[in-house]
Amino acid sequence: MSLDALFDPESIAVVGASTTPGKLGHEAMANLRRFDGPVTPVNPNADGELFDRPFAASVAEADADLAVLCVPAGAVPDVLAECGEAGVGGAVVYAGGFAEAGEDDLQAALAETADAHGISVLGPNTSGFLRPGAGLYASFVGGVERVDPGDVAVLAQSGGVAHAMAFRAVREGRGLAAMVGLGNRANVDFPAAVEYFDSDPATDAIVLHVEGTDDARGLLETCRAVETPVVAYTVGREDVDAFAESHTGALTGSYVLYEAGFRQYGVPTVDSSIQGIDVAQALAAGPLPEGPNVGVVTAQAGPGIIVADRLRAAGAELPTLSEATQGTVDEHLPGITYAENPVDTGRPMPAFGEVVAAVAADEHVDAVVVYELYEPGLGLPTEALDGLAAETGTPIVFATGGDVPDEELAALSEGGCTVCFSPERGADAAATLATYGRLHANAAATEVDR
Amino acid sequence: MSLDALFDPESIAVVGASTTPGKLGHEAMANLRRFDGPVTPVNPNADGELFDRPFAASVAEADADLAVLCVPAGAVPDVLAECGEAGVGGAVVYAGGFAEAGEDDLQAALAETADAHGISVLGPNTSGFLRPGAGLYASFVGGVERVDPGDVAVLAQSGGVAHAMAFRAVREGRGLAAMVGLGNRANVDFPAAVEYFDSDPATDAIVLHVEGTDDARGLLETCRAVETPVVAYTVGREDVDAFAESHTGALTGSYVLYEAGFRQYGVPTVDSSIQGIDVAQALAAGPLPEGPNVGVVTAQAGPGIIVADRLRAAGAELPTLSEATQGTVDEHLPGITYAENPVDTGRPMPAFGEVVAAVAADEHVDAVVVYELYEPGLGLPTEALDGLAAETGTPIVFATGGDVPDEELAALSEGGCTVCFSPERGADAAATLATYGRLHANAAATEVDR
Repeated sequence: MSLDALFDPESIAVVGASTTPGKLGHEAMANLRRFDGPVTPVNPNADGELFDRPFAASVAEADADLAVLCVPAGAVPDVLAECGEAGVGGAVVYAGGFAEAGEDDLQAALAETADAHGISVLGPNTSGFLRPGAGLYASFVGGVERVDPGDVAVLAQSGGVAHAMAFRAVREGRGLAAMVGLGNRANVDFPAAVEYFDSDPATDAIVLHVEGTDDARGLLETCRAVETPVVAYTVGREDVDAFAESHTGALTGSYVLYEAGFRQYGVPTVDSSIQGIDVAQALAAGPLPEGPNVGVVTAQAGPGIIVADRLRAAGAELPTLSEATQGTVDEHLPGITYAENPVDTGRPMPAFGEVVAAVAADEHVDAVVVYELYEPGLGLPTEALDGLAAETGTPIVFATGGDVPDEELAALSEGGCTVCFSPERGADAAATLATYGRLHANAAATEVDR
Repeated sequence: MSLDALFDPESIAVVGASTTPGKLGHEAMANLRRFDGPVTPVNPNADGELFDRPFAASVAEADADLAVLCVPAGAVPDVLAECGEAGVGGAVVYAGGFAEAGEDDLQAALAETADAHGISVLGPNTSGFLRPGAGLYASFVGGVERVDPGDVAVLAQSGGVAHAMAFRAVREGRGLAAMVGLGNRANVDFPAAVEYFDSDPATDAIVLHVEGTDDARGLLETCRAVETPVVAYTVGREDVDAFAESHTGALTGSYVLYEAGFRQYGVPTVDSSIQGIDVAQALAAGPLPEGPNVGVVTAQAGPGIIVADRLRAAGAELPTLSEATQGTVDEHLPGITYAENPVDTGRPMPAFGEVVAAVAADEHVDAVVVYELYEPGLGLPTEALDGLAAETGTPIVFATGGDVPDEELAALSEGGCTVCFSPERGADAAATLATYGRLHANAAATEVDR
């Protein structure tokens, strides 16, 4: 089943559209105003217009690829059947009250109707999806238009977590290629979504949020098969099964089994939503790490200790730098600082960027993490780092703090660095890059051997 | 030895003041412009003025309580002796190149001179301290004037970590009562600093950053003796000793021993700088938790699962709510959501605040954590939560996401909630409150029994 009608429609109907602000059918229409194609509000009890679009009395009149259903749970199967008869190929079902509430029969009826009509259904029990690059904001949450286009796709079991990650990306000055809340996954599950965004040219990395799934093997096989790098935020470390089952109708998996399973299939796992979007951003920015060895450069020793400590605790390697690198570092440093790995420059300095460049070029280093507390008189090494990751083949995570001007942060990002706002976040992103590099080192070696 | 001359001076001399932007002696003077008292630049090789203050040729001419030393390491003992003869009672020494660089003799000379003249020395090898409420910004890092007055004191072994935490507080819209980088602790160590800020009326909670200390018992005894709540960010989980020793001249302690030791003395430990400032803010906002039981209210299930999962993993209890509370919750909820603990309201709703209020008032609950993805049409429950923590005696952590207006966040903070920008941060802060409550439950019971 193609997901094009769902995720790449040419026309949209909002069934249950409402003129009452706050109602799903109003907020969904408001967010879809940015879509560059027909968006038809459907409501047999309304007339006139909503956001300058005339109401249709039925979905048959709307001529839509995608139907966004803002109707109560009980009405969903019948509305889906109408959609099928009207040629709709994709649907978003916001309503809760299905498997997550013990209403398995209702969800089965939804799935049966959707399958019979060949409709790809996102949900039920989801807050929707976004594809900012297509101007497609199929969520009922206000403010999602602030999510700009980017190159990471967030595919989350929970719409709430998907939105939390999307708005966090906004706060970090980043965009997203897509944000999807899968909800109860009546007939669109993780594998289909991962395959779809793997083939999306705008998506350079995928971050999953997984509470539990009936088809873990299918998901893992898919993650291994796709070309796009994937990381997974697996939730369910403790016994929250009763609550989780009431959420999306699936038992949470065993955390340890999930983590081991994902790694076996080449997917690093993370411990928080911010770590997920940080490392996905780093994987999307590229290049991909080819081993577990991290070079650390810091302008302040204390944060450097935090970074080194977290890297080691997460299983990353901090290799000794080559003699050539140490020579370059020694040239720039006064000698009283710690010039192995981490390299500690004492304070930001004019040659800070050259020190980072030497470490990034070191043959023993697969990824670099930098920490620098911003000092206005000294600035960030934006010029020295511009294009450095691409030139050296080494991904660079730049963690910083202080009163940094937005334009310096933007310059670092545009130059290929992934910017994070604390030593811990920089370390956690770099540690996950190291895990990715370790898991894919053999694959990379095998490809070279062929 | 009183620390008043150091932390509460009436007059300040900047020794080694410089007219060259970027130099320590220039940046330090620039930041001290906000101080409401005499600040004298001292430099025998300069004349004229710096920031409208005439240069003095020697510290003796400056008549200062506090001397901020922007001179090279080798000159420090002699300059300190001059300071002592001039009646200076406190000094900040920025220079590195002492015990952290193997120069134990130089540090011993510094300490000996300081002790002989009764000078309290912050450092050496520190980037200084801030007391925003006193307009006192004794740091050389640009932008520190953005740290507003608040009620948490950050006492960090590393000046770099201290500044990272201070600027993070700024990003979160919070202020600080103080920020101190202790550095090499030549004659002012953790116990004296903790005692000083315990007696500071502006300080309602203290967060420590500890890499290692020669006098762990002294620190622990002090933490137990003071009235102000203390939390500790202990760094050194892995073997980073060689690097850490090169930093502040102390071996990092064993992480596990530190963590156990702190808890034995009533001090919860945290795993990141943001968790440290979050929970310190919650302890400062008050009231203090009296047990380990956390009530969770969420408007979105997925983030609620994250919160519950992290709370349990950290050892917090999620008690069953009382029948009265469950009755109140049932009145407001449509019945399909999960009305035990966590309470899941499905979406934000008009009665969301009343649900939080019922949980906060529950006799089984010692702390509350709320998660709500902001929906503009529904808003945050600022009115219902205004003063609720104080009324119920239950601290409230409000985690949120989305496009939240600053004024709603400010209203929540002013109403006594601690606001965090992710489900994970809300959970981590609440889990640490639960640990605090568990560690102090017996003490509270004992006091009641007396």
